[in-house]
Formats: sequence, C-alpha cells, structure tokens
Amino acid sequence: MTGLKKKLLRRIDPDLEAVESALVENLSPHLELVRQAAGHLIFSGGKRLRPLLTVLATRICGHESPFIPKFASAFEFIHTATLLHDDVIDGASMRRGKAVAHSIYGTPITILVGDFLLARASLIAAETENPGIIRVVSAMTEEMSQGEIHQLIKKGDIHITENEYMEIIRCKTGILIEGACRTGAMLADAPEEKENALTAYGKHLGLVFQIADDILDYTADTSELGKTVGTDLKEGKLTLPLIHALNRARSADRRLMETVIANKNFTENDFKALLDLLEKYNGLDYAKTIAEDHLARAKKHLEIFAPSETRDILFTLADYALYRTS
Amino acid sequence: MTGLKKKLLRRIDPDLEAVESALVENLSPHLELVRQAAGHLIFSGGKRLRPLLTVLATRICGHESPFIPKFASAFEFIHTATLLHDDVIDGASMRRGKAVAHSIYGTPITILVGDFLLARASLIAAETENPGIIRVVSAMTEEMSQGEIHQLIKKGDIHITENEYMEIIRCKTGILIEGACRTGAMLADAPEEKENALTAYGKHLGLVFQIADDILDYTADTSELGKTVGTDLKEGKLTLPLIHALNRARSADRRLMETVIANKNFTENDFKALLDLLEKYNGLDYAKTIAEDHLARAKKHLEIFAPSETRDILFTLADYALYRTS
Repeated sequence: MTGLKKKLLRRIDPDLEAVESALVENLSPHLELVRQAAGHLIFSGGKRLRPLLTVLATRICGHESPFIPKFASAFEFIHTATLLHDDVIDGASMRRGKAVAHSIYGTPITILVGDFLLARASLIAAETENPGIIRVVSAMTEEMSQGEIHQLIKKGDIHITENEYMEIIRCKTGILIEGACRTGAMLADAPEEKENALTAYGKHLGLVFQIADDILDYTADTSELGKTVGTDLKEGKLTLPLIHALNRARSADRRLMETVIANKNFTENDFKALLDLLEKYNGLDYAKTIAEDHLARAKKHLEIFAPSETRDILFTLADYALYRTS
Repeated sequence: MTGLKKKLLRRIDPDLEAVESALVENLSPHLELVRQAAGHLIFSGGKRLRPLLTVLATRICGHESPFIPKFASAFEFIHTATLLHDDVIDGASMRRGKAVAHSIYGTPITILVGDFLLARASLIAAETENPGIIRVVSAMTEEMSQGEIHQLIKKGDIHITENEYMEIIRCKTGILIEGACRTGAMLADAPEEKENALTAYGKHLGLVFQIADDILDYTADTSELGKTVGTDLKEGKLTLPLIHALNRARSADRRLMETVIANKNFTENDFKALLDLLEKYNGLDYAKTIAEDHLARAKKHLEIFAPSETRDILFTLADYALYRTS
C-alpha cells in the first residue's frame, strides 16, 4: 500500500465504515440470489470513492444527517450496476482479483441485477424528495449509458480523436463522480457557488481518475490491479496514452502499433513492443500531464472552501486518484 | 383485426397519435445509433397499452395538460427497456414479427440501450417534481427486475406453484401497468379513493394481460402473434395453463408433459400432444377463468367513476386485454 493510501485510509475510516453498513442495509432485495449476485461485486473491495465523495461533499457544506450514508450508497449501487453490465458487454473475466459475476451467476441474472441496482439507486434518490437531486441522478445514468455506447462504437477505431476520448470518459466515469459531489452539495442545500465548486471538482476528479485508470492498464502490476494489464487493448479500447502515441508516431511505428491493436491475441512481446512505442512517443507521460492539469483544476475549485480536515481529505483524494498504483 | 380492437382503435386514435409523437420527441439520445437501436423496437407496432392507460387515467380524473403524453411515454420506454433486456436474456429471435434488436445491433448495444431507456424514463418522471410519482416509477422498475429474476430462477421448474406464477407475473407485468394507471391519477392530483381505484384497476388489468399473453402463447396464430407459438415452453417458462394441468394430471400424463418440458427441441407433434393434455385437464379454460375473475375485478374498481367515454374505453381496454387474438 502506498503512503498516500495509508494516510487517506486513516482519515476516512469512520466514513468508509458508515458507507459499508449503508450498502449492506440498503441493498434489501426480495430474493437471496439477488443479494448474493449483487454482493459478489459490491463487497469485493471497491474503493468506495463515489459514496465517500458524497459524504465529504455534504460535510464540507456543513451538513450532517443520518440519511447521508444511505444516500451515498446510491452512487456505489449505480457504479456496481455499470460494472456488471460492462463486464458482460466486454466479456471480461476478472474484476478486483475475482471472477466476474456473470461467470458465476450467468449473464441473464447479471443483467437483471444491474437493472435492479439502477432502480434501487433511483429509489434512494427519490427519498430525498428533492427534484433537483432526482434529476441529476437520472441524467447521470442516461449520460453514462450513452458514454458506454459511444465507447463501443469507437472500439478498435484507430482514428479516435483525443476529444472523442475525453467525451467518452466524461460520460462513462466523470458524470457519476461529478454527480456524487454535486448532489452532496444539493443535499446540504449549499449555496450555488459551493455546489458549482464541488460539481467542478468532481468533474475534473472524474477525468483524473479515468485517465489514471487508463495509464494503469499499461503500467500496473497485474496482481495489484486485480485484472490483467493490457485488458483495455485486448477489448479494443484505445485510451489516451495510445491515442497520443498513434498521432505522433512515424509511419513504420504507427503500422506496428496498428497491427498490435488489430490483433486481439497479441503476445506479451507484442505488448512490450507497444509499451516501448508509448514510451518513445511520450504517450504515458502525455496522459499523465493531462491528468495533472485536471488534478490541479479539481483542487483549485476547492479553494472557495475554508481550510478544514474535510477539504484536506478531498485534496488528498484527488492526489490519490492520480498517484495510486491500483 | 377483431371487432373489439377496431372499436377500441377508433376511440383512442387521437391519444395514440399524441403518444406516438411524444415517443419520437422524447427519445432524444445524443447518438444516432441509440435512436436506431431503441427505435427498432419502440416503433415496431407495440400496442401502447401502458402510455394509453396513463393518458386515460389522467383524463378520468379530470386532468388535461400538454405534459401528459410525454409523461406517458416514460411507461413505453420502461416497457421497451425490459423487452430489450428480456430478449437478450431469453435468447429470443423474433418480437412483433421482426428480428429482435440484439440480432441486429448486438447484445452490448442492446443492453446499454435498455439502460438508456430506463434512465430516460426516470428523467421524465423527475420532470413531474412529484416525489410520490418518482417513487412509484423507481419502485416499479426495482420490482420488475426482481420479477424477471424470480422467473429465471423458476425456469424449467415443474414444481412451480400457481402462487409463485402469480407473484412473478405481478412483478414482471402487473406492476408497470398498475404504475401507469396509478401515476396518471397522481399526476391529476386525484383524491385518494380515485388513485386507489385506478391502482387496483391497473393491478388486475396487468394480471389479465399477462395471463392472456400466456394463453396466446399456446393458442394464437404464429403469424398474428409476431413470434412462434410455444416460445414460453421453449424458454422453460411454465405458465398458468400448464401449471394447472400439471397439478391435475394423472401420473402417465404428467410424465409425458414433463418430458416435453424438459426437451427444449420438442417437435410439433410433442407440442400438439401437450396441447391435448392442456385441454384434457382444463389448463387453458382454467387460466381463462382466472383472467376473467381479474377482469371483473378490474372493471368493478372503475365503478366509483361516473359513466363517461373515458370509463367506457377503460372497460373496453380491459376486455381487449383478455379477448385479443395477438
């Protein structure tokens, strides 16, 4: 575990515990099988980034209420639903070091449990009786599904642009993290400038988080990552490091990269050759620079809040989003 | 077309047109592919029963507003989403006489378009800014996913009871039709007894509709039905006619029925033999009697409303739910 993660965990431990209990309490399906199939992924060591952000966003706006962990759990339920559906769609085999749900419970159950979790989250959002919050939550899931579809359309497309990539990750990852922060402020009935600041923090943090994920898919240690490095490439997902390198590569190198991309069964040596080219054309560094820019912007937006323990944690969370190793 | 359908269509034509326009207007995805993939099923000649019920429920409560067709369209979007996911889950090939969406657009897009439509419906519900309505819509989709899972668990189970069957169809079909009626009353801000009456009408109508569907799967004309007769049985779905016959069959007949059920590749002759046994043990008649009972109860609940054209249509719709031929 990195020092950053340790430092963070010490400070958020009580919040993580509250979120954990809320997840157990509020899953509440009729059928035991739904609890098992949903629980398989929900309780598999996720980071709880999204619910944690909601909790912290309400707190930095000076709001406390016993409903907060429950409300926050909605964001983990939505996140889990999208992971369940994505793993079916991508034909993934591992997630967080475990076999994916659909390999155990079958695709039908997994699709329906995803639907259940989306509805569960809507129902929790409805409990706020706050039309603004409900609208943000619904709009989020709408954008997310479209982001995933956009990603599917661009699968294996070597002409994908950096802008298209940014739009895809904004929808598929950014929107939910942004929504987790924003609705926290809304639940706290925060003034508009605080809501906007947390919305912007979440938006940039979401981009940082996804770009870091996409870098880790090239650089992480497989055992630490909980899935095989190079999975994105195997699934035809061209991410920022590769998009940048493709744009800059000279024709022979570009052809080599295109060959590896086109070959779903690339060897370890092919992957190493590709990594060398990402290095040569600064793909990984470039992606890191873009992420660092969004990280700085995320933090900047928090400056309207007075210094506090909560603001500190939000800063550290943003650092962690980029500098984590898994 | 039956006389009943003709009579009905003449009277609801302007409402159907309004619903149709609302469906086109409010699908509004970012991506053309989403419009196409969702539109493939949405605009394939569905009955529009659910949105129509919402429109009629608001009207019988004396409410008129330009928002109604839009609100009503949410119920068709939810209905379409569940059909898209169900067809993936069941491995279906035909729906409304057309190839299913996933055979054209692929399973991944179809799953995600289903998610999109569920979110689209939530967003439309959120527009009402009515927490009660929003809660009903979210609770509906939650129950529906659990009903589908329950059905999956019971697939091929010859010990399924009539109660389990009724609970499954209540969740997978009844809840949405009930919700379409109930939220119509809520949107009209109707007094509690009218809301309860429309809720109960919808609940019983939903059961009538599904039992009729399950009977038609044995008795309809394939070309009229838009999918092959016997599909439920092929998919391992044991429905009321068969459940009743199984319960009453003498052991040799029961064994024969069990053999057909267990054999996914049953022949036309096997199916005919099964139909004979359904006849012998009154399976189809029994299911019809149960449906007629719910039909009578559905109508009974409408009696608190003064006679009107709208009430008449709701009566006729209930008859149509049972006495249709496709």
